[in-house]
Amino acid sequence: MLPITNFQPPFRITRASHVAITAKDLAASRDFYRDVIGLVVTEETDDAVYLRGLEEAAHHSLTLYQEKGEEAKALYIGLRVQRDEDIVSAENFFKANGIDYRRVEKPHQGPTIEFRDPVGTHIELTSSMTTVERKMQDFDEFVAGAPQRIDHFQVVSYDVQAATDFWAGLGMRLAEYTAKDGTDELWGSWMEVKGNTHDLVFTNGRGPRLHHFAYTVPDGISLLHAADVAGARGFGEEIDRGPGRHGISNALFLYLRDPDQHRVELFTTHYQFIDLEDEPIRWDISDARRAQLWGMPASRRWFFEASEFPDEPVLEPLLTAAPSTLEDYLQLH
Amino acid sequence: MLPITNFQPPFRITRASHVAITAKDLAASRDFYRDVIGLVVTEETDDAVYLRGLEEAAHHSLTLYQEKGEEAKALYIGLRVQRDEDIVSAENFFKANGIDYRRVEKPHQGPTIEFRDPVGTHIELTSSMTTVERKMQDFDEFVAGAPQRIDHFQVVSYDVQAATDFWAGLGMRLAEYTAKDGTDELWGSWMEVKGNTHDLVFTNGRGPRLHHFAYTVPDGISLLHAADVAGARGFGEEIDRGPGRHGISNALFLYLRDPDQHRVELFTTHYQFIDLEDEPIRWDISDARRAQLWGMPASRRWFFEASEFPDEPVLEPLLTAAPSTLEDYLQLH
Amino acid sequence: MLPITNFQPPFRITRASHVAITAKDLAASRDFYRDVIGLVVTEETDDAVYLRGLEEAAHHSLTLYQEKGEEAKALYIGLRVQRDEDIVSAENFFKANGIDYRRVEKPHQGPTIEFRDPVGTHIELTSSMTTVERKMQDFDEFVAGAPQRIDHFQVVSYDVQAATDFWAGLGMRLAEYTAKDGTDELWGSWMEVKGNTHDLVFTNGRGPRLHHFAYTVPDGISLLHAADVAGARGFGEEIDRGPGRHGISNALFLYLRDPDQHRVELFTTHYQFIDLEDEPIRWDISDARRAQLWGMPASRRWFFEASEFPDEPVLEPLLTAAPSTLEDYLQLH
Amino acid sequence: MLPITNFQPPFRITRASHVAITAKDLAASRDFYRDVIGLVVTEETDDAVYLRGLEEAAHHSLTLYQEKGEEAKALYIGLRVQRDEDIVSAENFFKANGIDYRRVEKPHQGPTIEFRDPVGTHIELTSSMTTVERKMQDFDEFVAGAPQRIDHFQVVSYDVQAATDFWAGLGMRLAEYTAKDGTDELWGSWMEVKGNTHDLVFTNGRGPRLHHFAYTVPDGISLLHAADVAGARGFGEEIDRGPGRHGISNALFLYLRDPDQHRVELFTTHYQFIDLEDEPIRWDISDARRAQLWGMPASRRWFFEASEFPDEPVLEPLLTAAPSTLEDYLQLH
Repeated sequence: MLPITNFQPPFRITRASHVAITAKDLAASRDFYRDVIGLVVTEETDDAVYLRGLEEAAHHSLTLYQEKGEEAKALYIGLRVQRDEDIVSAENFFKANGIDYRRVEKPHQGPTIEFRDPVGTHIELTSSMTTVERKMQDFDEFVAGAPQRIDHFQVVSYDVQAATDFWAGLGMRLAEYTAKDGTDELWGSWMEVKGNTHDLVFTNGRGPRLHHFAYTVPDGISLLHAADVAGARGFGEEIDRGPGRHGISNALFLYLRDPDQHRVELFTTHYQFIDLEDEPIRWDISDARRAQLWGMPASRRWFFEASEFPDEPVLEPLLTAAPSTLEDYLQLH
Repeated sequence: MLPITNFQPPFRITRASHVAITAKDLAASRDFYRDVIGLVVTEETDDAVYLRGLEEAAHHSLTLYQEKGEEAKALYIGLRVQRDEDIVSAENFFKANGIDYRRVEKPHQGPTIEFRDPVGTHIELTSSMTTVERKMQDFDEFVAGAPQRIDHFQVVSYDVQAATDFWAGLGMRLAEYTAKDGTDELWGSWMEVKGNTHDLVFTNGRGPRLHHFAYTVPDGISLLHAADVAGARGFGEEIDRGPGRHGISNALFLYLRDPDQHRVELFTTHYQFIDLEDEPIRWDISDARRAQLWGMPASRRWFFEASEFPDEPVLEPLLTAAPSTLEDYLQLH
Repeated sequence: MLPITNFQPPFRITRASHVAITAKDLAASRDFYRDVIGLVVTEETDDAVYLRGLEEAAHHSLTLYQEKGEEAKALYIGLRVQRDEDIVSAENFFKANGIDYRRVEKPHQGPTIEFRDPVGTHIELTSSMTTVERKMQDFDEFVAGAPQRIDHFQVVSYDVQAATDFWAGLGMRLAEYTAKDGTDELWGSWMEVKGNTHDLVFTNGRGPRLHHFAYTVPDGISLLHAADVAGARGFGEEIDRGPGRHGISNALFLYLRDPDQHRVELFTTHYQFIDLEDEPIRWDISDARRAQLWGMPASRRWFFEASEFPDEPVLEPLLTAAPSTLEDYLQLH
Repeated sequence: MLPITNFQPPFRITRASHVAITAKDLAASRDFYRDVIGLVVTEETDDAVYLRGLEEAAHHSLTLYQEKGEEAKALYIGLRVQRDEDIVSAENFFKANGIDYRRVEKPHQGPTIEFRDPVGTHIELTSSMTTVERKMQDFDEFVAGAPQRIDHFQVVSYDVQAATDFWAGLGMRLAEYTAKDGTDELWGSWMEVKGNTHDLVFTNGRGPRLHHFAYTVPDGISLLHAADVAGARGFGEEIDRGPGRHGISNALFLYLRDPDQHRVELFTTHYQFIDLEDEPIRWDISDARRAQLWGMPASRRWFFEASEFPDEPVLEPLLTAAPSTLEDYLQLH
């Protein structure tokens, strides 16, 4: 698979850090993320709500913006770079490689740029945020899943190989991947930069679309409690997968849909992936255990629904499967 | 609903206590219940394996017998009566009411009788068992779900009302029930004798068939660990429902199928139901929350498959629903 | 030990049901039990606060009364009898045995009487309560330990044998006990009536004093979360024992002191104790494992502090130990 | 406090990776770490046992060597560097700074060097290990605490400031620290390199001595189960602290002593610490919450006992406290 080399990436990405989505009813979405998921509201403005996990010192890891059009969208996924200088290095890299980008001013963020990766994923890079209080010891304010921090993003892409190549070139390391049996056809890639299995995941399908963003929770009981709270607050049918255990990454997961049908995952963190001698793990797409080690399959909603990015055409996947096996093939995490 | 009266039952049933099923491969089933569920093997003979939960002092709560025919069966569900005298009282009651029964000799059991209830459920009553060591503090021997004790049985019956009337007459108290909206048509009854919501459950359908027997586990983590162990041991697809939360009885549940497709439930116990002023809770069958407070519906297997009793004809249910709503109606716990 | 007989108690006690204590600052104590323990406030009046566990349908299991004197007191522990007729039977029994009692009118309770047992414990018996909504499925309102229901009381007594004999005569069954090595000197007795190991516990010491009352919690995580919440709300030093595991009854426990130093236990329930062939378990007082299976010993506060009953003299224990071993001996649960 | 600079460390340390200790009875210690802690035995030789956590692909994170002298010792703590070239860079750095080191051949390790830091801590650096199977999905083999991976080391040092300065110079970042009230006197430092709060901790006292090494566990239930298993296997009194919650790092912890009184911590991981704008958290040593957010203080054993390194003199701490406050001051995590 991808060779581990000693190359230095053009700038240093440190972690998945934030995501922005739109909501048709901002108050309803705020209530969902605060009361059903358990995030902390850092700040509200007329057209935006900034939220964060309980342990996060960064001002926001999720921003909800008022949607003024017909359909709620995923605006961008955000990554951190280590220093302000990395933003400059990123600009130089994008210029040199003919990638459009623009500097943007964002409240509570340091130097920030926006760009689209080669498969159309909308990305924001920033080097710092205003710090606020970590709430991780305010145990009396823990609600629902008690989400601790944002962890990763999963994007449905029409060309997983192109996406993977691009991000590998920026220093992301492949931890696990799915490929068509007996071939190198890449159907899903789990790539990381922070020392565990994934910060950014691409899976094969109509894209680009944001499949989900994920927060860590303290333990399996928190997952079950989040599900119970979802049921108590009328979102019991908005669980479209789980609780279950993925083979890939070994995550214990629960997926919920917000009032605009954006999907959020709660999960109990993954294994450490730091040592360079560790090879990425390959899963054949015929191996059902990659998707789940036990239990019933995901719902059709989980397989086929995801959030589009604004003004970004959704393309048919380059790799396709015979219709009879489509669902099986799509069982990518 | 059923009035609470001061009547004295003809003999005193104290709890759900044991169940016997057949297995076509006795060793495989023993391994399943010991390694995937976590029961303790008390004793093995040439054609039987006796198992119990970790806290149980009684010799067995599950007995596996070698099946010599084509199809594995549920042999009987077992209830405890308080004293040897209660067995005599039961005999007198059965004689007086024209119910066939017979005294049987069972290893490690006190006085024991077998009979069939009016809807054909095979029942065994006994007043005591040989006591063995409680293993509840041998924490280093806990495996999988760490099941503590047998708790209840669920039987699919063609006439839930008749079953409920019979067992109410023996002192079982209705804790919760399902009924067709706007009517008194009884579709499911949860009846108890030990001070929590159920020892014996009847749900509407082709019967009599044993839907499942249930063991308590210490907590939700034990449920998840049991599922993980099932996955690791090749039984990941034999989870046909859960983890989930029933509305009825508030149980946090997981259902697994054994090598002969008998179904066992692991769950985290129920609420106390002792005070006589507490009315039974009614659920309309149109209320999906009775079956689960959140998550995806059960599999078809869970709805339609159950274990038959030997030589006992399976009858079509007296109450039926339009085919289009059949699955909904059958979502009884 | 105590023989298991077929005797019928003079009236039928069904469970530990409620407790009343005084508080010097009623609002502070209400906040403690609601926010740090997690009980539900059913009702507040000028001089009383009524609380219950999340699954309880009974109006109150804990009542806080305004203390007008110098020192907060335990007023009484409350037991349920099955029917109104049992209250009458109890009166007859007390008259016949020369035990003082009185009928009292209590809000939201059926027929109620008060009396003192032979070792001075203040007791209330009632046959019913106003029913209110069970909150066990309002998961979004769960707080701290998420206590489900009241379970048992522990009383320090100067004469454990006398207390045990009295309550055995009322139908309470001994599940476990501690005795001086090589003798029948009874140092602690765990007695039950609801089918698990204890509703009422007596341990040797200056008494009568209420050592603690106990609520069940769903799992060990709830215990840890209750401790975390106690820390976050400034009650971190008011944990005077645990989390730990008692040998006796196998309880996983946490003890906290309220603003008046009354002690409340949270624990994850016990094992079933229904079958009459089960003998009570004896623990020698020299066996440290009776008190805890692991971890550091309890604090001195836990050993020596307890709540007095009003106008009830506290007597020195009849059984005493050499000073050097006093603490060891007192390590009764 | 320590400024965050853009300096490049002379070589790149990636994580706490392994530890070696001696055991007077190798089989007894192997049994302890395998059965009471739950580690996996990778390999045994005549005089060594190699163990690892369940998710670890590296050949060993704990090595037990046969002690031939009178007293069991801590041999060294091991850190990973990223590449073989980092070992060469480290050698160059040590030469340039007059620090003794030596290349050693170690089974299943890549290029490896040993050295002592300025406060006498014995250290091993290596760049790779033989990879073996991750056992994290062999759930049916999970035992006791189900430890997933080694996480950090805590060393008692006579000069915390000197130790901190040295390791900061090698790229370790200060996440939290304790200092004497109103001064900059450094009493404890929590330093990290892998993106959460600590890989290496120094606390003030007689040193150098290894206070403990730590493994992560999946959740709080695993901590409680490890304690229960310790009790069941006769190590119940070898828990010298916890379960409890540290203020520093927010760790939910349990400490156990092995048969030679080496101390191992199990804990549920810490918060993410990646962003450079996050300042280290200061705790005054007068603040008891730094040591624990709730519960009873640690035992004297926990405060005063630790493992010496061979042939390394133990020095009195440079910073001392009045005897009356010694215990308080020593309550460093």
